[in-house]
Amino acid sequence: MAVKSGTEYIRRIDSYPPDVRITGGQIHGPLSEHPAFKGLMSTQAAMYDMQLDPAFRRKLTYPSPLTGDPVGLSFLQPKTKKDMAARRKMMQTWALQHHGFLGRAPDYMNTALMAFAAAAGFIEEKYPEYAANLRRYYEYCREQDITLSHVFVQPKTAHLAVLLSLIEEPTATRIVDKNKDGIVIRGAFLLDTQGATCDEILVYPAPVMCEEEDSPYAFAFAVPSSHPGVRFVCRESFVGGDSAYDYPLSSRFEEMDTLVLFEDALVPWDRVFICGDQKLAVRFFEESDFHTHAGMQIMCKNMAKTEFFLGTAELMVETGGIDRYPQVREMVTELILALETLKSLLLAAERNASRDRWGSMLPDRKPLLAANVYYPKMYPRMIEIIQLLGASGVIMIPGEQDFHSPLESQLQRYLQGVDRNGKDHVRLLRLAWEMSVSAFGGRQTVYERFFFGNAAQVNDRLYKGCGDREEYKKRVNDFLRTSDLR
Amino acid sequence: MAVKSGTEYIRRIDSYPPDVRITGGQIHGPLSEHPAFKGLMSTQAAMYDMQLDPAFRRKLTYPSPLTGDPVGLSFLQPKTKKDMAARRKMMQTWALQHHGFLGRAPDYMNTALMAFAAAAGFIEEKYPEYAANLRRYYEYCREQDITLSHVFVQPKTAHLAVLLSLIEEPTATRIVDKNKDGIVIRGAFLLDTQGATCDEILVYPAPVMCEEEDSPYAFAFAVPSSHPGVRFVCRESFVGGDSAYDYPLSSRFEEMDTLVLFEDALVPWDRVFICGDQKLAVRFFEESDFHTHAGMQIMCKNMAKTEFFLGTAELMVETGGIDRYPQVREMVTELILALETLKSLLLAAERNASRDRWGSMLPDRKPLLAANVYYPKMYPRMIEIIQLLGASGVIMIPGEQDFHSPLESQLQRYLQGVDRNGKDHVRLLRLAWEMSVSAFGGRQTVYERFFFGNAAQVNDRLYKGCGDREEYKKRVNDFLRTSDLR
Amino acid sequence: MAVKSGTEYIRRIDSYPPDVRITGGQIHGPLSEHPAFKGLMSTQAAMYDMQLDPAFRRKLTYPSPLTGDPVGLSFLQPKTKKDMAARRKMMQTWALQHHGFLGRAPDYMNTALMAFAAAAGFIEEKYPEYAANLRRYYEYCREQDITLSHVFVQPKTAHLAVLLSLIEEPTATRIVDKNKDGIVIRGAFLLDTQGATCDEILVYPAPVMCEEEDSPYAFAFAVPSSHPGVRFVCRESFVGGDSAYDYPLSSRFEEMDTLVLFEDALVPWDRVFICGDQKLAVRFFEESDFHTHAGMQIMCKNMAKTEFFLGTAELMVETGGIDRYPQVREMVTELILALETLKSLLLAAERNASRDRWGSMLPDRKPLLAANVYYPKMYPRMIEIIQLLGASGVIMIPGEQDFHSPLESQLQRYLQGVDRNGKDHVRLLRLAWEMSVSAFGGRQTVYERFFFGNAAQVNDRLYKGCGDREEYKKRVNDFLRTSDLR
Amino acid sequence: MAVKSGTEYIRRIDSYPPDVRITGGQIHGPLSEHPAFKGLMSTQAAMYDMQLDPAFRRKLTYPSPLTGDPVGLSFLQPKTKKDMAARRKMMQTWALQHHGFLGRAPDYMNTALMAFAAAAGFIEEKYPEYAANLRRYYEYCREQDITLSHVFVQPKTAHLAVLLSLIEEPTATRIVDKNKDGIVIRGAFLLDTQGATCDEILVYPAPVMCEEEDSPYAFAFAVPSSHPGVRFVCRESFVGGDSAYDYPLSSRFEEMDTLVLFEDALVPWDRVFICGDQKLAVRFFEESDFHTHAGMQIMCKNMAKTEFFLGTAELMVETGGIDRYPQVREMVTELILALETLKSLLLAAERNASRDRWGSMLPDRKPLLAANVYYPKMYPRMIEIIQLLGASGVIMIPGEQDFHSPLESQLQRYLQGVDRNGKDHVRLLRLAWEMSVSAFGGRQTVYERFFFGNAAQVNDRLYKGCGDREEYKKRVNDFLRTSDLR
Repeated sequence: MAVKSGTEYIRRIDSYPPDVRITGGQIHGPLSEHPAFKGLMSTQAAMYDMQLDPAFRRKLTYPSPLTGDPVGLSFLQPKTKKDMAARRKMMQTWALQHHGFLGRAPDYMNTALMAFAAAAGFIEEKYPEYAANLRRYYEYCREQDITLSHVFVQPKTAHLAVLLSLIEEPTATRIVDKNKDGIVIRGAFLLDTQGATCDEILVYPAPVMCEEEDSPYAFAFAVPSSHPGVRFVCRESFVGGDSAYDYPLSSRFEEMDTLVLFEDALVPWDRVFICGDQKLAVRFFEESDFHTHAGMQIMCKNMAKTEFFLGTAELMVETGGIDRYPQVREMVTELILALETLKSLLLAAERNASRDRWGSMLPDRKPLLAANVYYPKMYPRMIEIIQLLGASGVIMIPGEQDFHSPLESQLQRYLQGVDRNGKDHVRLLRLAWEMSVSAFGGRQTVYERFFFGNAAQVNDRLYKGCGDREEYKKRVNDFLRTSDLR
Repeated sequence: MAVKSGTEYIRRIDSYPPDVRITGGQIHGPLSEHPAFKGLMSTQAAMYDMQLDPAFRRKLTYPSPLTGDPVGLSFLQPKTKKDMAARRKMMQTWALQHHGFLGRAPDYMNTALMAFAAAAGFIEEKYPEYAANLRRYYEYCREQDITLSHVFVQPKTAHLAVLLSLIEEPTATRIVDKNKDGIVIRGAFLLDTQGATCDEILVYPAPVMCEEEDSPYAFAFAVPSSHPGVRFVCRESFVGGDSAYDYPLSSRFEEMDTLVLFEDALVPWDRVFICGDQKLAVRFFEESDFHTHAGMQIMCKNMAKTEFFLGTAELMVETGGIDRYPQVREMVTELILALETLKSLLLAAERNASRDRWGSMLPDRKPLLAANVYYPKMYPRMIEIIQLLGASGVIMIPGEQDFHSPLESQLQRYLQGVDRNGKDHVRLLRLAWEMSVSAFGGRQTVYERFFFGNAAQVNDRLYKGCGDREEYKKRVNDFLRTSDLR
Repeated sequence: MAVKSGTEYIRRIDSYPPDVRITGGQIHGPLSEHPAFKGLMSTQAAMYDMQLDPAFRRKLTYPSPLTGDPVGLSFLQPKTKKDMAARRKMMQTWALQHHGFLGRAPDYMNTALMAFAAAAGFIEEKYPEYAANLRRYYEYCREQDITLSHVFVQPKTAHLAVLLSLIEEPTATRIVDKNKDGIVIRGAFLLDTQGATCDEILVYPAPVMCEEEDSPYAFAFAVPSSHPGVRFVCRESFVGGDSAYDYPLSSRFEEMDTLVLFEDALVPWDRVFICGDQKLAVRFFEESDFHTHAGMQIMCKNMAKTEFFLGTAELMVETGGIDRYPQVREMVTELILALETLKSLLLAAERNASRDRWGSMLPDRKPLLAANVYYPKMYPRMIEIIQLLGASGVIMIPGEQDFHSPLESQLQRYLQGVDRNGKDHVRLLRLAWEMSVSAFGGRQTVYERFFFGNAAQVNDRLYKGCGDREEYKKRVNDFLRTSDLR
Repeated sequence: MAVKSGTEYIRRIDSYPPDVRITGGQIHGPLSEHPAFKGLMSTQAAMYDMQLDPAFRRKLTYPSPLTGDPVGLSFLQPKTKKDMAARRKMMQTWALQHHGFLGRAPDYMNTALMAFAAAAGFIEEKYPEYAANLRRYYEYCREQDITLSHVFVQPKTAHLAVLLSLIEEPTATRIVDKNKDGIVIRGAFLLDTQGATCDEILVYPAPVMCEEEDSPYAFAFAVPSSHPGVRFVCRESFVGGDSAYDYPLSSRFEEMDTLVLFEDALVPWDRVFICGDQKLAVRFFEESDFHTHAGMQIMCKNMAKTEFFLGTAELMVETGGIDRYPQVREMVTELILALETLKSLLLAAERNASRDRWGSMLPDRKPLLAANVYYPKMYPRMIEIIQLLGASGVIMIPGEQDFHSPLESQLQRYLQGVDRNGKDHVRLLRLAWEMSVSAFGGRQTVYERFFFGNAAQVNDRLYKGCGDREEYKKRVNDFLRTSDLR
């Protein structure tokens, strides 16, 4: 096989259902028909279908080095700038399908796995079998077009427990046993976005500090989502309902976040990538340049999202007839500035790419790290702009059924905008409401704020990644030195 | 009679049901049992009950000048500072019941009506009968403890229509006929908060500019909410559900906003307060010092809300064990600063009150107008602080039923906080989520942003209300003048 | 004697000149005639003269408890709210003379010394003789109307030296010897504002951490500024020149900051207040509630300054004819809001004052600590507003002499404003320039940013000073607790 | 001839001295020796010398199309991307000489003139002789390496006069006569930066609104700075002094701003480019794409400046030993983000350049317009960061002479930093002071805020320049349209 269709995507999830709990109960029927999942799965199915669509196939796939069959382009290890550009176009194409509202579109994890596997060399020195596992797993996912989620964040209590010795039994997720079949994992991970609707789950914890040589807290592995001993506990669903008029975003893009419980789950040895070596675990992200590779995918997502916000804002301005106010134009201009900034940073990352020691063409780190600092600050302002443009329009939102009621003509009349009848005006405002006011929109805001860590973390990544500082310090020192000569 | 009980509040609404439409259909059963309204009505019922509770009666009522029976203290025209302080304590007492989440607690409209009636003198000169109507109506509401909503904002299209001549028939709400029984009103109003759950509705439009002497757009009146020809169209309900664990705020405080349609509704003459006189209509707010009187009530609400945010933030910090981070302490300090600012502005408004020409003790305008500029800027930052303190905790929110499931012990374990088990920790986080991320919270943010108008309007109110500017200009001029003397 | 006149103030400084170095040389003539000092000294002389002026005497003085002669009111330990109000009016009266541009008007240090002496009891328990010294010193200053400066900040290098063990000899200021006559001090202090133009200097370092029981770094004392072994090294002077037209602020209000060197200066025993007891030294500020007492003086200063900025901004708007722009009105409104906030916080501090354990009427801490957080954030925005209102007008500043040149009539013509000829318009703009663009203005901005410490320090002072947090936490906990009951 | 040397630059200014007034008097000796001008002129002379330096000649010049001799590369009309890149490198090379502190380095006006001349075609249609004048003037400046300043802003009073009819004689600059020799100009212009130290002045007013067909307010021309009837009135000089230790910036980079008076100055016909045609005058900037061409030069300047700020900040952090504070790292990271943003926007502008109708390779407008919106907001924050990193260090600034005094060893000791003795530490802090606190620094801040107009103007330039809005609106509309299909 190779790239899968949307039907196949859905078939697999429905055939090998993970253990998913929502509002206290376990889901038994097909996930693809459950209100909390069907919209998202349908959106992703359409994205997978594009891979088989002649109009897009060339843009979205490349021939498998194993079979020659088309496989997903986001699995491609970029070795040239051309590869990198092809990857970017692929990711932009998908981003235009979800307008940036999917934080975990499949290309995100495909890219992550590619980055890890490409850097398997750093594991190989000490653990050739684990490196082989990782590479084999990457090939497996690429050839089977596996949909993947990942976890690495542990509940706060794990850290607190260590800090405060609250509890007798350690709560940090750990290896509780090793046997001939594999390693046994106990514990929990936070915020596995789309965890319930993926084929597999990749686990690589930020390791808890531990003095022991063979740390029970240092590991990386992957298992099927339906693996015994693995459970997904859903947060409340933010799907507003089925109507795409009423819920244009959540009816399509709501990605469930889950708490993943490992209840002494057995991970077979051939799925183990790191085991016990804490130093290796610590270097996992950095050696693979995860943040840089993934950074490209995120840029594509964020640009599409910013364009979508800009388009929405412009329509609100047009429909509201408010572009004569300087403060309105100023707010739209802020969005334009944001977009130009992102576009330019992406261009710069690509333009100044260079080959890394694993043979990958690596985008320039700094513009991407800069974007990672910038976007979480800008996004809440984008939300604010939509709220300010919307005003009472994003509060007073009747729904589709109101326009199918006896009051229709009055609503059409009183709620109309410039060149837009009441129903279409409200349609636009409901979109603005879902973006900026609804629970779906609120979760997106918090998600973007912390996408790649908290502010201190993303700042420090850029702070440390700025290799030119000696040059600029030297320039100022040289300048100062001349002061004595005059 | 006099002050009513909660039971009576509910009985009246259920007995004289207004025509309320929600998701396209008309509500037929008792509103007090409808999921969208029962929480709010129950909260307000409890507030009304306090008026009869010996523990609170003295604080919440005063003897009717007509009958001596206790009537609601927020109806009292304050003639002394003592009256004003009594009113403030009354409003604070109720605010502690809803923690500022009700924008239209009954004391808001009681205060508004009191302000209008006290200033009826400005109508009296030209229209003694309308002035008498207004005073009589005030007495009626006070004696019957009427629950009141109000409208004055028209759909944008009304203004656009005038500006752009879009439509043949005018869309601005207007008097389409006058006859011996009263005036006939056609049109719509936006955002009648709690419109569906009040006894009566008070209407006083910001008049559309009109050259005619006898303007069809200039009027003020009141009718029962169940009046023929009056309909309320609800926005989507933001009640998350019945569970106070899952939805601690929306299950109690969700105030429905409605679009009010007047379909040639006949307003009897004795309920007409302004009719046709545009100049009078324009001066309605200013002459009655509506923003100042209502400003006191809003301050009480906003202080209670800020205290509630501060308490929540402190609990999040404590439970998260994060007070060792300077940036965390800084954010909490911002909330403390906000609270001290509001408390001090309220104190100043009261301290420097003076009697106005209607005999009312009027709080000092400037601190209240200043607070009206300040709070809509601060509130979104308060929301942001809760989001930043919450991080993934305000995304990953399982619900009450999850804690009644077989997974309880694991959730209790993995989701615990400092000194708080998993269930209580999630309880706190769900509160934070409802405040800052949910649709309920999002609507509150937009509502606060525009509570008393957009930024330009509240700015100008303060800008124009600053009577000391000549003093400060003179001081600088005097200072500059001395420069030649030296 | 008692309160001194301006002449006496100048006579003393000129008669007992401290060792002052500026631009590498020692000043030999009278300080009061030196360009860097004469403007400031003349301003302060005028302030002292007011104490003897019948029009102000009553407002500015009170009868000495020792002699009955009038002494400066800022020395008064407030025991009642009336005392406190009298002190405030005194401070406001002086603040209107310097419009808040003096950070170290004499009432600042008078207040500080009063606070320390009133709290001498906390020293008395272990060191009755030091406590007596402190009280005697306070009386001396009060009766002689001593002009005082103070230091407590050490050069960074002192801390770095300890941290990094950079240097063999310790650089932190310390007691290098004790003998029968007193203690011998070696080291330096930063930023003694007005150090050169005061009679005496009060020293109380934030103690360097030190394990020893009898710490050489823990001390407090006072000596005359002209004391042997004490030198003042000036920073560059920011007096622009003599012309009050060209330099309306710096020609009057430029307070020199100095680096103070103690070169084995002998401090006589009767001027020693703390010696060797580090714990005592640490508690010095807190026990005396220095920040609260001084906070009142600072509020008076900051309010006067804000009023002056508001007046200036309003004149700029008027003269520029720009009040039709909403963004201009918004900026002025920000200044009005700032002023209302400060006024209200001061009112609240005074209103909720209470007696402390030393018998002093202590203003409520929280509004003052809140103001200390607020003002350093607001002040730079005030500067920004003046710059934005001024635009090219605060760049293109000809001077007084240009208006006395042959080009006068053209300058009068081309530089005029609304209702203001060219010369008067430029006079206003030069004021705005000195406030917001000049070196004098720049130093004021940095000074205000760090007036009471850096942001983390002032935040934490409020954070820790918020005694109500348990109340608000309880309120939220109670609210949450009810969720199970429904 | 061709490119000139520094000596020649100085010789010309000194030989043909303009009429310059400062502090009321006329300057009579050579400008190059006057304290207010010598630093700047020496800096620019060194820049001109580079053109003749074999190490730089190739980078800074190109062969004159007329003579083949090397002429300044900033005069080159770019016809290819290679040309554009060559221009950019030229401008970056000079920017590294002044680190962005010169707003009017010669390449700025060379670029402006090139842009105008390249677009002379838009004048040619109606006024072939004026177009020829403009092209000839461009050649003259290029071949003679003329140093040019320009004016277009009129005193506010000009606009006010029209608005308010304040004055009988119009104050807006205008043509008061035309005769066979040329046109006679009366009036004033604001803010001719470097006006006094340039060979020539180019005048093109933003035309005052005027109904007349042949408007006296519409003109463009150039004359020598020493032309009869032209006078330059200087603002106060911000050169702190000669010492490069004390005043590392103002001793080299202080660009005087002048008010230019035209006292019935006769402009010969061959120097007239526009005369009377208001519509043409209005289109002058837009047709020539002045803001885009100049935008490239500004980007080079702003990047160099940002790098210099970053280097300075990094040295302050290093010397102060403060990089362990997260808020310190965050502030430095803001500077890194600013730099990455500028670099990327410049790259994008160049990458997406295209040929315009005049045959010029025109950089992509949007990234440059975006940068024009961004930088004036960012620059004040950069200043703030330097102030916050500097704290008392940018207040307590002794000078060079203090380190040549008997106190040297104490200052060396007490004022040292990490790895930096006292004198070098203070050298760095004085740089930081001049950047962020001094009058020189203050003027730079205001200058950057308004470099290309006020915020509303630069916003609108981007707002209107965003050609993609239809695309994004369409995308959202398409998205919304699908909601009915499901």
